[in-house]
Formats: sequence, structure tokens, C-alpha cells
Amino acid sequence: MTTLTQDPRHLDEAARAALFTGAHTANTFADTPVTDEQLTQIWELARWAPTGANLQPLRVLFVRTPEARARLVPLLADTNRDRAASAPAIAVLAVDDRFHDAIPTVAPFMVPRQGWLEENPAARGEMGSYSGALQAGYFILAVRALGLAAGPMAGFDKAGVDAEFFAGTSWRSSLVVNIGHPGPDAFRPRLPRLPHEDVVRFA
Amino acid sequence: MTTLTQDPRHLDEAARAALFTGAHTANTFADTPVTDEQLTQIWELARWAPTGANLQPLRVLFVRTPEARARLVPLLADTNRDRAASAPAIAVLAVDDRFHDAIPTVAPFMVPRQGWLEENPAARGEMGSYSGALQAGYFILAVRALGLAAGPMAGFDKAGVDAEFFAGTSWRSSLVVNIGHPGPDAFRPRLPRLPHEDVVRFA
Repeated sequence: MTTLTQDPRHLDEAARAALFTGAHTANTFADTPVTDEQLTQIWELARWAPTGANLQPLRVLFVRTPEARARLVPLLADTNRDRAASAPAIAVLAVDDRFHDAIPTVAPFMVPRQGWLEENPAARGEMGSYSGALQAGYFILAVRALGLAAGPMAGFDKAGVDAEFFAGTSWRSSLVVNIGHPGPDAFRPRLPRLPHEDVVRFA
Repeated sequence: MTTLTQDPRHLDEAARAALFTGAHTANTFADTPVTDEQLTQIWELARWAPTGANLQPLRVLFVRTPEARARLVPLLADTNRDRAASAPAIAVLAVDDRFHDAIPTVAPFMVPRQGWLEENPAARGEMGSYSGALQAGYFILAVRALGLAAGPMAGFDKAGVDAEFFAGTSWRSSLVVNIGHPGPDAFRPRLPRLPHEDVVRFA
């Protein structure tokens, strides 16, 4: 089960199943707690994967106290509240609209473009949104890499979450991800994936 | 090195290194070919990870014949041409602006909203762009899961690529990813990542 095959960097079947082929979105969660150390480890993995010009616009708020969860859950779509309420932790993924402030540290080669990004909020928003979503994809797989279940949810009141949690900051929420161990009947039958011939072409 | 720890779904250190902590963007590629079967396997992994309402907007064109590569490389930013030219395969990741046509098959619960998506191209574009970028993140990690190196590049002439490869279709290019085995001096020193305290908060 756990021997590496073909190439030392090639993931074996068990690891591929954990991330991709055998993983499902969890809809219920067990009481088993998730520690702050585990939550920190998620980011310790996800942060190494690549972003456009290394600008790393994603930000993460881990909501896990009863008080903070009680502020967040009512801002989710009706259909998302029950499963979020049962999750021991809920990550609010956000994009920092001022991600370009870090350019001198993370992307010195971009310093000549920093002023342009400051003056072009629409272009900046597009860059932040794209790399932020790439990083959200890495984040979801990093949750799974740690043996935890992820439940991403796009249906929530973004303006409400921003006002409640990010007032006075440049963070803007984009996705909410339940995190925990699967509970009873956590997994629904998998929805169909598009056939390869509708998605993949060769040239 | 390869024993699973703590949980059967928990990735070991070697697998985490292959995906996250030890992986780097490759800037040169070896002559070692990448087969169409390997390219197909990338999608076979990536397609299982979650998208908003299961709508799966990402599309993939694998460019690997000399003729097709000669059409693509001039459309990349100057600084991206040499590395792309050395890659045995280049994936053009695109979003299908008509992803909602698949709703009856992949997301029957969305049928009542299909007409609304047809009539609201801006909202549809935002959904497609977000889930397409999530899927691009999964795609990059799936390349790595197969023991291959990925080199994502945002700098290219999108309109030019769409005209050259996607004329008459609803595919719109969003990211180009070099794929292959690392060549000589493939890896530059890693650029810094933001410190945890700038990214992660707890509530």
C-alpha cells in the first residue's frame, strides 16, 4: 500500500486516494477536536505551492471558538449552516486586497510594478482573485494531506462576513471551508465528473 | 520514509515533500518524454477535487507536438519562452464560458438556475473563473503527484492563444503550465513565503 512506485516523488495509490480519487466533501463531522497545531500545519503545507509572481494573496481565519462560530454560522447560506455548526473548525479564506504591500519582501523583481498595482485596483483584484483561488485549491488538498476532511462552501454572505470579521482591514472573504473528522453519514454519493473527452484535448 | 503515520489518510513526509514542502517550479526540462497516458493521468487525478456546485469549468489543452508548440511559444511572454520550449508538454488551462451547459448532467440541483446563468455572463464568468482557478491549483498538484515537474506561467497573450487554439469555441485560456522532468539547473533558490503571522489568524 505505501511503497513508492516508479519515481521517488511519485505518490502511491493510498496518497492519491487521500487527496483525489478517494476523497469526498464531508457533510457531517465527528466530535473529535482539531487542534490549533493541526490548523497551523495546514498552512505550513499550502504556503509552499506556487502563486503568480509569488504574491501569495490568500489569508486564512480559522474560526473555532463557540463564540466565533456563533458569529459566523448565521452568515452562511441556510443549506450550509448545519454542517458548519458540526465542524470543529471553519476556515474563512480571504484575499488581501493590499497583497502588493509585500512585494519588496516576497517579489523584489516586482518593485517596479508596485505603484501600478496600487493605482489599478481592478487589475490588482483580478490577480488577487486568481492566485487566491489557486491557493484555496492548495489549501483544500493540504487539509486532506493531514488526514482531515474538508467541506468547501461558496454560499455565504461575503459582505456580512467581511463586516463581522474583517472590518478595518483589507481582507475580503472568498470561500469557507469546514474542517474536521467525518461524522455519521458524512459522505453523499459522488456527483458525476465530466468525461475526459469533454475536458481534455491534445495538440 | 514511506510509512503512513497517525491516520491511514495522512500523507507521509515524502508525499508532502513531493507536493508542497520540497517541490519547486522547474525552469528547465530534460529530454525525457512525457507520454499522452501520463498527461491523461494528471486529469484523472485532478478531476475528483471539488468545484463550486460541481460545475467543473476547467478545460485542458495539452500541447506536445513540435508543430503545436511552435504555435504556442511565440504567444508567451519573452521571459517564459525558453523554459516552455524545453518542456516536453505544455498544458493550456482554460475555462469554458459555457460550463453551465453541463448542469443537467453534473449538477441536476442547479437546473432551476441554468437560465439565470445563461442570461448573466458576468456572474457566470466570476463563477467559472473562481472554480477554474481552484481546479488549476488541483492540476498543478496532480502533476507533482505523478512525479512530474510543473512550471505554471501567467504571462502570455491570452487573446492570441484563444484565437490560435480556441477559435469558434467557448474556451478561454487562463494559465499555461510546463510539464516534464527537471533539466540541468532547473530550480532557482526559493522565493520567500510570507510569515504565518501575516497570513493566519484564529478566532
